[in-house]
Amino acid sequence: MAKVIQLGFLGCGNIGGGVYHLLTEMHDEILKREHIDIRIKSALVKSIAEARSDVPRDIMTEHAEDVLRDPDIDIICEFMGGEQPAASFMQKALENGKTVITANKMALALNWHKLQAAAVEHHAGLYYEASVGGVIPVIRSLTVSLNADEIDQVMGIVNGTTNYILTQMSQQGRPYADVLAEAQRLGLAEPNPTADVEGFDAAYKLSILSSIAFHTRVTYEKIHREGITCVSPDDIAFGREMGYTLKLLAIGKRNGDSIEVRVHPTFLPSNHPLARVDGSLNAIYIHGRYCQDIMLQGRGAGDKPTSSAICGDILYAARHLDTPIVPSFANTAETDPAINFTNNWTCRYFVRLDAADTPGVLGSVAGAFSGKSISIASLLQRPSSNGRATIILITHEASEQSVQEAISSLNTDLVKVESMIRVEN
Amino acid sequence: MAKVIQLGFLGCGNIGGGVYHLLTEMHDEILKREHIDIRIKSALVKSIAEARSDVPRDIMTEHAEDVLRDPDIDIICEFMGGEQPAASFMQKALENGKTVITANKMALALNWHKLQAAAVEHHAGLYYEASVGGVIPVIRSLTVSLNADEIDQVMGIVNGTTNYILTQMSQQGRPYADVLAEAQRLGLAEPNPTADVEGFDAAYKLSILSSIAFHTRVTYEKIHREGITCVSPDDIAFGREMGYTLKLLAIGKRNGDSIEVRVHPTFLPSNHPLARVDGSLNAIYIHGRYCQDIMLQGRGAGDKPTSSAICGDILYAARHLDTPIVPSFANTAETDPAINFTNNWTCRYFVRLDAADTPGVLGSVAGAFSGKSISIASLLQRPSSNGRATIILITHEASEQSVQEAISSLNTDLVKVESMIRVEN
Repeated sequence: MAKVIQLGFLGCGNIGGGVYHLLTEMHDEILKREHIDIRIKSALVKSIAEARSDVPRDIMTEHAEDVLRDPDIDIICEFMGGEQPAASFMQKALENGKTVITANKMALALNWHKLQAAAVEHHAGLYYEASVGGVIPVIRSLTVSLNADEIDQVMGIVNGTTNYILTQMSQQGRPYADVLAEAQRLGLAEPNPTADVEGFDAAYKLSILSSIAFHTRVTYEKIHREGITCVSPDDIAFGREMGYTLKLLAIGKRNGDSIEVRVHPTFLPSNHPLARVDGSLNAIYIHGRYCQDIMLQGRGAGDKPTSSAICGDILYAARHLDTPIVPSFANTAETDPAINFTNNWTCRYFVRLDAADTPGVLGSVAGAFSGKSISIASLLQRPSSNGRATIILITHEASEQSVQEAISSLNTDLVKVESMIRVEN
Repeated sequence: MAKVIQLGFLGCGNIGGGVYHLLTEMHDEILKREHIDIRIKSALVKSIAEARSDVPRDIMTEHAEDVLRDPDIDIICEFMGGEQPAASFMQKALENGKTVITANKMALALNWHKLQAAAVEHHAGLYYEASVGGVIPVIRSLTVSLNADEIDQVMGIVNGTTNYILTQMSQQGRPYADVLAEAQRLGLAEPNPTADVEGFDAAYKLSILSSIAFHTRVTYEKIHREGITCVSPDDIAFGREMGYTLKLLAIGKRNGDSIEVRVHPTFLPSNHPLARVDGSLNAIYIHGRYCQDIMLQGRGAGDKPTSSAICGDILYAARHLDTPIVPSFANTAETDPAINFTNNWTCRYFVRLDAADTPGVLGSVAGAFSGKSISIASLLQRPSSNGRATIILITHEASEQSVQEAISSLNTDLVKVESMIRVEN
């Protein structure tokens, strides 16, 4: 009486292999629990001869159409990564009425409206739990469990590579380049680390997360993005001294029809639950009108955790092939014109200055901020070398624009702005 | 084109009122998002005249049948609390083909197999996200997102009242009775606190959580249960000194066909993510073969967070009235005979002794443990009053039975066992 469900894989590297192993090892248990007999019919690879995964060669193919057009295949799992051809393959699969499961945040973030339209039109499922936060069940929590709520904030550590680098820099006081090189040696950072360290990966994930949380399309282009390449161990150390921990955060906030979405290095109070999420862990903090504060934490990467999330989607999809769930938010190509996306958000700011150690300098610094109506919450001055001083200040709540103007006006021979880092509560 | 969904409430106190307010305040937004027009048709109360909630009197009724038999009602939300008549009302609602949503862990834990059988037979939905951990989406995470995984551990702070009491005792060094009295004054503990402080509430929740996690019925009777009434501030202080934080944990572990389920005060390393979950927060830590470690944290009580979870269930149920989801695990009246429920688990142990400060005492203590093949990981001895000493020891992994035997053999005039607290990693 078991329902046979046949899968096709697009791509069969680390994640594809992980899903293959989970489904093989858990096949009989899943059959017993769910009465679903899951079979992997075919897997698209670039080259069967060069395939490194230990998935049986006889299910591999080098022709996408073998997977996309196979009438026996119910569900297509995309493991290729990158925007294309992953997105157009997923589009074709949906147009062929096949349910699609993906962990590909880039292809999804950039093509979501088209994929969702195809899913609706062809009555197919589209699931992507693993696209944000790996195994953390944040997509389903937002789309189902918190669906009746009004979410006003999502704030996440959604990139394990940068969290690993920042954790090492913080614990060992080592500079960015050193830790990056080590992470690359350990396989924790890509040979070309740009997507991670410049915040692109986090921004794709934030596009998905904030779209779902705020029930409106937040396109990738709306996201203010800064990476961690300019973070110095000095900032981390001074921040710690003042009670803050540095994280690369993906932040989305909604206030009425105004939305801010930004990825940048951020100081959090060291007792904030996200501040304690170290190494390659991911975590997402959610705040809403009714739910108040929720935090979900887990492995954001790795073949096993990612496979767990993908296979959760596979089982869900298999049980709902006839009644697929597509989230009902307005997933349009352009963002809703009624929504105002602002780059002039309000938060607190950490500013590190290198100043001449002469009378009047502190006054001119104070004046630059007070001139923009920014009040200073705490200040630390230390002598550095060559008769100069390091000044660290943390502001009260202030607008981005006023802080940018204040620090622009400060860059003179007497005072040099070394860094400006946003502070969240 | 909106689908009209009519609700009936069983009970209309704090939580019922909260759900009423959320659905009223969010009505138009939910209509816009989901095209579902949710209406609350009637609410059963004991006495309309004495009803304290500000829900309109004209939807209130004192007759259960008005709610249970109303053919207009699609979904029945149970907010009565207690086992009966809540469970029999839910049973009748399901038999009438109505989907049931409940946050009632006691009624669910004790009658789940009957309720689930009625749901399956009458093709109705049965949802209970808010029954464990309030707004924390742990039920859906386990039944859907982690459904393909093999969960071997759930460990939760699932009772806000006891977590509040232990947090206050820990931060202020105050005795249990004082803090309980204060919690009662603040409305954070019931006038009769037994259900919370003796661990009954946590045990009902663990029955639900571990049944779902381990895909087999774990009845309430199988759970070893100890409350917090004997916890002393001394233990908390000594534990802290040794790097541990005390929590009332609901612990479920599965190893092959062996399951252990227990609720008791537990020391956790102070850097464990659960150790930092303070006050009335709840959190559930999950470990599995593929997912590795996940932690979900949020408000375990309060009308708004609980309403958020219940209304998430309501929207899900409303979208799936024709295809209700019932978890597919073996939910039987009796536990599966193939499963061995053990009370002889293995963990580490914290033992506090009051000993005569005379030569040989430490040797006899060491001998009592080594005689049961229990090795001691750390030991602390301090003079106390009247020529006696306090000895604290923490064992390496040992079996419950061997530790119980060792401490029984120790209770003499020379050595008195003041406390034994289990330690988890």
